[in-house]
Amino acid sequence: MNILTYLKHNQAIIDRALKTNLPPENIRPAILHEAMHYCVLNGGKRIRPILCIAAAEAFGAAADKAIPSAVAIELYHCSTLVHDDLPCMDDDDLRRGMPTCHVKFGSANAVLTGDALMIQAFQVLAESEDAHLALELARAAGSLGVIAGQVEDLAAEGQAPNADLIKFIHMNKTAILIRAAVRMGALVGGASEIELNSLSIFGEKIGLAFQIADDILDDTSSDDILGKPAGSDIEQQKLTYTAVHGIAAAKDKVKELTYEASKALNTLPLNTEPLHAIADHLMNRKN
Amino acid sequence: MNILTYLKHNQAIIDRALKTNLPPENIRPAILHEAMHYCVLNGGKRIRPILCIAAAEAFGAAADKAIPSAVAIELYHCSTLVHDDLPCMDDDDLRRGMPTCHVKFGSANAVLTGDALMIQAFQVLAESEDAHLALELARAAGSLGVIAGQVEDLAAEGQAPNADLIKFIHMNKTAILIRAAVRMGALVGGASEIELNSLSIFGEKIGLAFQIADDILDDTSSDDILGKPAGSDIEQQKLTYTAVHGIAAAKDKVKELTYEASKALNTLPLNTEPLHAIADHLMNRKN
Repeated sequence: MNILTYLKHNQAIIDRALKTNLPPENIRPAILHEAMHYCVLNGGKRIRPILCIAAAEAFGAAADKAIPSAVAIELYHCSTLVHDDLPCMDDDDLRRGMPTCHVKFGSANAVLTGDALMIQAFQVLAESEDAHLALELARAAGSLGVIAGQVEDLAAEGQAPNADLIKFIHMNKTAILIRAAVRMGALVGGASEIELNSLSIFGEKIGLAFQIADDILDDTSSDDILGKPAGSDIEQQKLTYTAVHGIAAAKDKVKELTYEASKALNTLPLNTEPLHAIADHLMNRKN
Repeated sequence: MNILTYLKHNQAIIDRALKTNLPPENIRPAILHEAMHYCVLNGGKRIRPILCIAAAEAFGAAADKAIPSAVAIELYHCSTLVHDDLPCMDDDDLRRGMPTCHVKFGSANAVLTGDALMIQAFQVLAESEDAHLALELARAAGSLGVIAGQVEDLAAEGQAPNADLIKFIHMNKTAILIRAAVRMGALVGGASEIELNSLSIFGEKIGLAFQIADDILDDTSSDDILGKPAGSDIEQQKLTYTAVHGIAAAKDKVKELTYEASKALNTLPLNTEPLHAIADHLMNRKN
């Protein structure tokens, strides 16, 4: 398989599904719905929903069945980006090469746009009538998941390098949601307990690898390639994996985690080729 | 029945249930869980969850069955208060007589606390395994409900009095969630389509009455009685019912809506005495 073709194909499917699952832009209040479209339909890489679909397909499920989960995960993810970028949070002006939500629509509307996207994520899952999927997302997203990571990420700014703390932040801020994306796909595909466990390990490992790769790119890439200011972690005194362990060790860790992720899939009698290919692609990505 | 005893009894039940449905305060990140407790367990009046329980009980359901819905509605409501109070929103320093979340924990943590409470609301519903209830909450809370009201409420600041606009704001910002509280209780109680329709009218009318009464109190009460700055609507140039229609017409409207609300219940062969009593209590409340 050609991974770039595979990703592009699925990005298009997800972009269409995201648009279908947002109220039209001209519905009152138009500024809110315009902002929701702006913050979601912005050329995102759709890593999480693609992983969700790939996990469902590994069990022979049709991609369609995984669409509500894929859409919900991406809507939730977009909501966190909108709130993260706020002046009182990371105060970022650029996201995917465009002005961030609060720059374009004002901070109050950005708070409310993030809220609306978060609720829309759970609405999509409620419409799919499977409470187990909503539970997966809520547990990953909540105060013992993504938000825990964000709170500690902000509190860690300017702190001395600390290996335990960076692990907690990466696990919660990033890996838990990527793991949830894979788990939700596996649940849609009817995974057994043992299979779900293997997929969880896969998701967690590539999630950790993904965030370390992000830290490396922020250190070594340029604004143009990233679509956001390179070096912003250093400027904001973020605690990063590279700051704690150095770039060489970070690159090794990405490879090690990706290897362990793929190994977790090897025992399963499933069609896991796309999952392996996505893991390798994430390890080698340039933005 | 004595309405004050009834409200106090149910407030205690709801406060206990809210505490049970929050992660303990000392769980990492402690500042986040402390903030969640601070913003929820603060002596709130619990109008929405009490209405939810009363609606369920009207159909003969045990209060216990309505607890997940009641808790979810109140958690969501608290999340909106935390975000509404932010400096970039209404910039309020006091809530129920105490410093607001961002004053006590900082704006970044307040954004994340609101997010965490919102997600916790949907987690509680997902644990109760009834996707219909989550759908009710999501539809009421999202970009075509509460958030629509908040966006237009903020945009209306400083605008000329406008009867249509104030109706849109009150309907979305307040009435839709109170209606959802009643509807979720009715659904838990097994309401028929016709019964649900009557309860919806009841919820919507008392929701509108509740918000107009709020506008009147802001105009005519004191900081001590309200637990927040009286006159803040005028100071923030909020568009209020009293600004559009005057205080006398506002008082009449509260009575009219409460009468219409009670009338919607009259055809039902249910135990609606508590719902009537709550409606009357809300009409005559002093804070």
